[in-house]
Amino acid sequence: MPDYRISDLNKVTRGPKRAAYDQEQIHGILDDTFLCHIAYTWQGQAIVIPTAYGRDGDKLYIHGSLKNRMMTCLLEAGKACVSVTRLDGLVLARSAFHHSANYRSVNIFGSVRAVEDDTEKMHALRYIINHMVPDHWAHVRQPNDKELRATLVLEISIDTASAKIRAEGVIDDKEDHQLPLWAGVIPVAEVTGTPISDPLLPPGIEIPRSVEQYVNR
Amino acid sequence: MPDYRISDLNKVTRGPKRAAYDQEQIHGILDDTFLCHIAYTWQGQAIVIPTAYGRDGDKLYIHGSLKNRMMTCLLEAGKACVSVTRLDGLVLARSAFHHSANYRSVNIFGSVRAVEDDTEKMHALRYIINHMVPDHWAHVRQPNDKELRATLVLEISIDTASAKIRAEGVIDDKEDHQLPLWAGVIPVAEVTGTPISDPLLPPGIEIPRSVEQYVNR
Repeated sequence: MPDYRISDLNKVTRGPKRAAYDQEQIHGILDDTFLCHIAYTWQGQAIVIPTAYGRDGDKLYIHGSLKNRMMTCLLEAGKACVSVTRLDGLVLARSAFHHSANYRSVNIFGSVRAVEDDTEKMHALRYIINHMVPDHWAHVRQPNDKELRATLVLEISIDTASAKIRAEGVIDDKEDHQLPLWAGVIPVAEVTGTPISDPLLPPGIEIPRSVEQYVNR
Repeated sequence: MPDYRISDLNKVTRGPKRAAYDQEQIHGILDDTFLCHIAYTWQGQAIVIPTAYGRDGDKLYIHGSLKNRMMTCLLEAGKACVSVTRLDGLVLARSAFHHSANYRSVNIFGSVRAVEDDTEKMHALRYIINHMVPDHWAHVRQPNDKELRATLVLEISIDTASAKIRAEGVIDDKEDHQLPLWAGVIPVAEVTGTPISDPLLPPGIEIPRSVEQYVNR
């Protein structure tokens, strides 16, 4: 897959050697979580809100209620900036100055439109659910007409994007190496626990394969 | 501690029963991680970027290089919106519509100024390091004059804030309870692994107490 086009909008100027623009790497980071942070403008103020998303190729889908302020502002602006960040470790250097983190982060600049066609809306919601837990859509009650009408779905078509990745050890100044100070990396990871079944389940309902596979991945 | 003042800026309108405005709860969420997402405006576009922060009372501190676009834009605007999000679980309902997540999230609206006094700058950097790993400042080489000069530190004084918290099980429509579909919660947590010492450490340097306490917390 080709790289995303580089412009002033997405160019990584601080720490450019950690930058990546190739679609495969960026899509990989996007598929590693379902939680993003989206910036929008409201009354001249830039605001950031966390939300869930799904990805289908070069499109992200988000959803919310019809009156959701972020959604309506994004729709009005016609564009969105989305950030997805995975923390992989704390980088504790000898010097305060060289403290850092290992992470994989993606910034997306995209065009926004409302998904209005029912079939397309259902497609988007399927991608959002399956992005959370792969193949889980087959194990849910799909939205009915009333629910579909109450849900605003936005498509964010990726215009350009960049990733910034740090995945290495401590980098201290050479003259600090002999200091009697510890330095190293503390790995950080997100883990999933044992599924807790809803106490209201009728007897005999088993945990579906999608959930089993997700927690044992 | 009193609540943060409620205005149109920070009022939680969607899911208001999950909203909290009390300082103690908000500070607790802020102290549970060091990674935030900040929104800023650049050429009319709202942009969001992840960064590290420290907290001292009602102030957050962030730092970066002198030419960091986010930092310079925030300073120019004199205000910032900060989001801190902790994911605690996936809430898998019977219906796609009632899928959700358990989370603790904070939105902050603050006033921005540059920290220019050297003593105050050192204070801010100490809070940033100690926010990452409590009491770790005593175990690092503190910034020298050159490093201090190369670091832009911003104070974000919290004007108002809100938290949104979901911490419960599945909430499905009653008529869906008898469906032959599984529903439940998959807990999610961030865990730290065993510290990996820098291979360049001189012999005899032990992992400091701050790091031991952090990984065993």
